[in-house]
Amino acid sequence: MPITIAVDAMGGDHGPPVTVAASLRFLEETPDAAIILVGLEQPLNSAIAAARSPAASRASVHAASEMIEMHEAPADALRRKKDSSMRIAINLVKDGTAQACVSAGNTGALMAISRFVLKTLPGIDRPAIASQLPTRTGVTTALDLGANVNCTPEQLLQFAVMGSALVAAIDGIERPSVGLLNIGEEEIKGNEIVKQAAELLKSSDLNFHGNVEGDDIYKGTTDVVVCDGFVGNVALKTSEGLARMLADFLREEFTRNPLRKLLALFALPTLNAFRRRVDPRRYNGATLIGLKGIVVKSHGGADALAFRYALKKAYAESTQRVLERIEQRLAAMAVPVTPVGPVDA
Amino acid sequence: MPITIAVDAMGGDHGPPVTVAASLRFLEETPDAAIILVGLEQPLNSAIAAARSPAASRASVHAASEMIEMHEAPADALRRKKDSSMRIAINLVKDGTAQACVSAGNTGALMAISRFVLKTLPGIDRPAIASQLPTRTGVTTALDLGANVNCTPEQLLQFAVMGSALVAAIDGIERPSVGLLNIGEEEIKGNEIVKQAAELLKSSDLNFHGNVEGDDIYKGTTDVVVCDGFVGNVALKTSEGLARMLADFLREEFTRNPLRKLLALFALPTLNAFRRRVDPRRYNGATLIGLKGIVVKSHGGADALAFRYALKKAYAESTQRVLERIEQRLAAMAVPVTPVGPVDA
Repeated sequence: MPITIAVDAMGGDHGPPVTVAASLRFLEETPDAAIILVGLEQPLNSAIAAARSPAASRASVHAASEMIEMHEAPADALRRKKDSSMRIAINLVKDGTAQACVSAGNTGALMAISRFVLKTLPGIDRPAIASQLPTRTGVTTALDLGANVNCTPEQLLQFAVMGSALVAAIDGIERPSVGLLNIGEEEIKGNEIVKQAAELLKSSDLNFHGNVEGDDIYKGTTDVVVCDGFVGNVALKTSEGLARMLADFLREEFTRNPLRKLLALFALPTLNAFRRRVDPRRYNGATLIGLKGIVVKSHGGADALAFRYALKKAYAESTQRVLERIEQRLAAMAVPVTPVGPVDA
Repeated sequence: MPITIAVDAMGGDHGPPVTVAASLRFLEETPDAAIILVGLEQPLNSAIAAARSPAASRASVHAASEMIEMHEAPADALRRKKDSSMRIAINLVKDGTAQACVSAGNTGALMAISRFVLKTLPGIDRPAIASQLPTRTGVTTALDLGANVNCTPEQLLQFAVMGSALVAAIDGIERPSVGLLNIGEEEIKGNEIVKQAAELLKSSDLNFHGNVEGDDIYKGTTDVVVCDGFVGNVALKTSEGLARMLADFLREEFTRNPLRKLLALFALPTLNAFRRRVDPRRYNGATLIGLKGIVVKSHGGADALAFRYALKKAYAESTQRVLERIEQRLAAMAVPVTPVGPVDA
């Protein structure tokens, strides 16, 4: 059965020029996929026609008359824009027309509308934002990256369960190792919530490695890194800022004078190999995990290559049945996740 | 009057080989400074003699029979090791023999002993760890980087006051701009403590810029970035991990084959210029701020160059009278920092 992805074609900083180009390119390399581009019909149809893609027959347009602005308050977007491209794309997942949806729009609105329309999985209090980050040894999956500023120990456990299921499905790791982000490896460190979360993780059947520190993320110490959304968002944004500064400094040094510019020409293959290895576009696509449906958030400024990676992610989560795996894990460990109530087994 | 710095000569991963070499080199370039090396007399005297430094006459040795291990529990170090090199160095600040102390030892123990021996400044609940970070435009001073996992809004305000005074003294910026680390620029985002801290900062006489996000640290958006110690420590460690990974990847690409190695030889001046610009050793030395005395923490793995930068920092804080400046600012804004109680002016 082909996988259909609903794309919020108006979302992001660039809209249709990026979303349409990326969608067609994705369809060309993924023969059993279809895409529904949601948004204003006329510009979307023109963009599809102009691209002259051999895969255009698997791209259709679904009309939506409104757009959610990047800085619109999520509550307003949820209440007022019932015919936004984002909302309609999510509706298509809800009614089963599409198996996943991808948007580069307003993160807060995407989370609010997804929760309202799709609801959370049984046993999950609130969805989290999960994303892969490059490490020395491969990748690690970190969550929550900004959806929940205050988390209970039980929520951190739920994030660990969902992150493990995601990594098991996508990376094929049977029992992914889970690290709890903290400020010291010793158990005495950290705040009360993190300490209690560590206890819950220890008594769960997850492969809990223990506490990890910020530098363990890029060391690749564990397959999954769990933290609250405030800490995770600061870690992610700080990384983005540092990487951009270092890239700028490197460019400046290689263009400081004519001799260095000449040198840079020879060094280009080396510098490009380095750049490809840590190209953030290859890691684009954060999963809104914990919903009864697959929703992937692309970076707002994504270009067509980056947006295509977000589409690949949504596709992989559909074919690898991530939602079923999470539900199975939650059912198997029903006791620790919902500590009150009788034991059913 | 010469500035005397007490050095915990046994602290850190390397001990005397690094602390003595760095101290002598520092004295050679700082004619009005003196250093008291605290620790085991015999190895320290031999190290000084072996160095044959022209500045050796300004380095003296003060005996201490014990050492605090890097992973010793702070409470144990405080209670049991009354004659540790760290404790004696702090005592020398307390009794006025030295104007500042520098240690590369156990951070938790240094904080615990400093608080116990020196006490906090009036109006300061708990000291914070402050450090400079490189940015696109220069440097920014971030605090707290790990001393306080849970902070009240009032403490975050105190950090802002101390950070501003530190930057004013060291960088000569009259009214440093202050950013509050958060996960969105909009005022609606963030947790309750950060929101309340923003209100306190707004009604203070500090140059409050507003909320900043993780990437603003390296953009250099503000002169001071304030956050709780959990978030600050994660941001710092994450940055260290990312920078190390990128440096490794760059080295790997430039040594992948003989041709690239040859190229690297030509590119060496460029790569070194890049490396110097972001060399973490140049930013070594975190200030334990809020104490009635100057205490600078060097990175445990610091080499002699890095440790010398920590000594320079302690020296600059002494000559620029950072403590008096903080006290003046606290006195001038006594009302918002201690919101209960009558107004004295």
